[in-house]
Amino acid sequence: MASNGNENCNANDSVWRFKGNGATSIAAAATLRKLIFGMFKNCNFNNGKTILPSITHTFKTCPEAEEAVAAAVRSGMANSYAPSPGIFKARRAVADYLNGELPKKLKAEDVYITGGCNQAIEIVIDSLAGNPVANILLPRPGYPHYDARAVYSCIEIRKYDLLPQKDWEIDLDDLEAAADENTVAMVLINPNNPCGNVYSYDHLNKVAEMARKLGIVVISDEVYKQVVYGDRPFIPMGIFASVAPVITLGSISKGWVVPGWRIGWMAMNDPNRILKSTGVIQAIEDCLDITPQPSLILQEALPDILEKTPKEFFDKKIKAMRYSVELSCERLKDIPCLLCLKKPESCSYLWVKLDTSMLVDIKNDFEFCMKLVSEESVLLIPGVALGADGWVRISIGTDGSVLDEIFDRLKTFYDRHAISKEPNQLNGRIAMIRKRKIIFLKP
Amino acid sequence: MASNGNENCNANDSVWRFKGNGATSIAAAATLRKLIFGMFKNCNFNNGKTILPSITHTFKTCPEAEEAVAAAVRSGMANSYAPSPGIFKARRAVADYLNGELPKKLKAEDVYITGGCNQAIEIVIDSLAGNPVANILLPRPGYPHYDARAVYSCIEIRKYDLLPQKDWEIDLDDLEAAADENTVAMVLINPNNPCGNVYSYDHLNKVAEMARKLGIVVISDEVYKQVVYGDRPFIPMGIFASVAPVITLGSISKGWVVPGWRIGWMAMNDPNRILKSTGVIQAIEDCLDITPQPSLILQEALPDILEKTPKEFFDKKIKAMRYSVELSCERLKDIPCLLCLKKPESCSYLWVKLDTSMLVDIKNDFEFCMKLVSEESVLLIPGVALGADGWVRISIGTDGSVLDEIFDRLKTFYDRHAISKEPNQLNGRIAMIRKRKIIFLKP
Repeated sequence: MASNGNENCNANDSVWRFKGNGATSIAAAATLRKLIFGMFKNCNFNNGKTILPSITHTFKTCPEAEEAVAAAVRSGMANSYAPSPGIFKARRAVADYLNGELPKKLKAEDVYITGGCNQAIEIVIDSLAGNPVANILLPRPGYPHYDARAVYSCIEIRKYDLLPQKDWEIDLDDLEAAADENTVAMVLINPNNPCGNVYSYDHLNKVAEMARKLGIVVISDEVYKQVVYGDRPFIPMGIFASVAPVITLGSISKGWVVPGWRIGWMAMNDPNRILKSTGVIQAIEDCLDITPQPSLILQEALPDILEKTPKEFFDKKIKAMRYSVELSCERLKDIPCLLCLKKPESCSYLWVKLDTSMLVDIKNDFEFCMKLVSEESVLLIPGVALGADGWVRISIGTDGSVLDEIFDRLKTFYDRHAISKEPNQLNGRIAMIRKRKIIFLKP
Repeated sequence: MASNGNENCNANDSVWRFKGNGATSIAAAATLRKLIFGMFKNCNFNNGKTILPSITHTFKTCPEAEEAVAAAVRSGMANSYAPSPGIFKARRAVADYLNGELPKKLKAEDVYITGGCNQAIEIVIDSLAGNPVANILLPRPGYPHYDARAVYSCIEIRKYDLLPQKDWEIDLDDLEAAADENTVAMVLINPNNPCGNVYSYDHLNKVAEMARKLGIVVISDEVYKQVVYGDRPFIPMGIFASVAPVITLGSISKGWVVPGWRIGWMAMNDPNRILKSTGVIQAIEDCLDITPQPSLILQEALPDILEKTPKEFFDKKIKAMRYSVELSCERLKDIPCLLCLKKPESCSYLWVKLDTSMLVDIKNDFEFCMKLVSEESVLLIPGVALGADGWVRISIGTDGSVLDEIFDRLKTFYDRHAISKEPNQLNGRIAMIRKRKIIFLKP
């Protein structure tokens, strides 16, 4: 960790010898939380516009999940300390939940319960750290909590590209070129946030073979497993665990639309016991002893949540997502500077290319998002925060009326900042002027 | 963090280049969780005896707290991500809860919500780390999660003694001698776990003056604030924050008997803004961005839990604790090898001196506790785990009938291992024999 200098603080007639840890700041700078809550501060709260997408307009969770939590708290069984790996019945329920698709079944002991998928990321990365020259392969674009935790655990980050022209498949040549003898792991996000694709069986098989060739563990982030609405089915990476060890991360956050509840898991798909032999299992169990435990209320409720949620809940959500995707892609046509290369088939985002050459006074995706939130109170994630300059992530997991409002505001914003298509009509002024209050008709 | 060597793992016809992080193991070894769940494994599950103290026999929480959680989950307001410092209404409620006794009132922004007091410990220690030669002053005996996290954050641990002959006051000379120019903080546990004392106003004032002299921050662990049943009132360390900055840690775990729920806080008592000037506030906020968030369900419920729990709940619990203390101290007289120097006036433990010279085949407190759990399924904490060899911690926050059973088993265990008082009656054999199945009558 970084030192913080040796200067003492003189205040209140005394010398104070302690300092804040600068290493936390470097790691935190990479997080989405820092970005999003920073963007909130950039909002103009006096323009009468609600910030969108709004947390009160996302899809609702199912009553069965809510009642499972209420029952858990009233049972009196959730009051004591839990064992660090999680309670057995929760581990058993997650194993059952994941086992349907796996040839080598998980035992309850292969599963560890965490405070959401983010804590699973933290623990896996910490558990693979310790070698000062270790590096990890992360996707570009990707989910920045991996970057933040790798920075904090002093693991070097190496990025590999996802290929937009090939359904966002992993560029395996690029991945191999990025690796060396100090590479310890690769992160795969499937279904993919932010790109919205789902990987095919054949591609995942190739990924496993490459991991085996490189001698690394695959961290498979499957937090969006329950949010797949395209034609291609979701294939869990654990299917290929006999080729290379796979640590599967997941949670109920996305499938049940409850990221605030904070309950998730890590599953060790490792039929050849390589994670055991290499001490990774021990490090994970040790790490669980020294990090926060998820609330036992949620652990107690987890089996019922996983087992008693009716299929209709997911069917309805998938139908709603399909509608959101169609509506969003249609409305996006009004905003020529944003281009969606491929309709998403999973997750709840449009991942769109930003063409700043069509805008007067916006140089990059970060500036686009900051001006947008300031002027229109619409919060999009700039691609740079996900490792990919020149892109923007739009959350579309929300009601149609809210989506309409988001795209109305985006259109207004675009019109205000678009380069004029009619330079000659503007008294001969050059095209690079700032346009305000000129609304184009729909094409 | 420690390196893990460079050997690769050959398995499944491949070479695997990753390793578990050895640093996690060194830190985890210090934790109570590791010890307690390790001791569970030492239990004889075939002797027909329930493990005691049992989680099903602790005091019950209040229905108001349970209903606050049920209402929070049903409100739909707990589903989204929360800001890293916690939601405003929870921070406001904790500030109000703590402010009653403080001359300089806390604002909501001075409070950060954490996943129980343990996570508050983790974040505070991490936030003070970064200087490779930093050290921290911890009490002996103390709470080992501080040790584990200091090890993990590479902060050197220096112990100061608590004085049994002076009501477990801090040995301030010892504390001063242990400090140097690299000391960043001291930890104070008040009400004190495991000793069961409550510090006086005058003593805390001296502690604050000493912290100021040393230029360090006081981390005041007040997690047992709500479990005080002696004559001396609890005084919060925050009262002295104008002398030296105080970070107050707390949670609902002990007061509401719900350690499994995992909701707590850190409060910055810092009228002179020294924690701000030194970058500690920034480090804490950064740390909150990269570590697990407490469940929003519990954050939403926290204001009602703090504000709507009737006084009668605490009154009843205090009455029950007084009864437990009287009963336990009385029953302890039957077990001469365990001596309680001072009746506790807070927390839920007896902290007793172990006299191994009265036992045939037990050399130390660790062996005492391991044999006890193996033979009698009674789980006590050996003093060595809390930094103090030769002591034992007995949990007494449980029903009278359970306490009777615990002390019955302790008596049986003592009798089985006690040095004979009647060596001449045993055919001239020496006293140092192992006694089995000889039950002494009560004195």
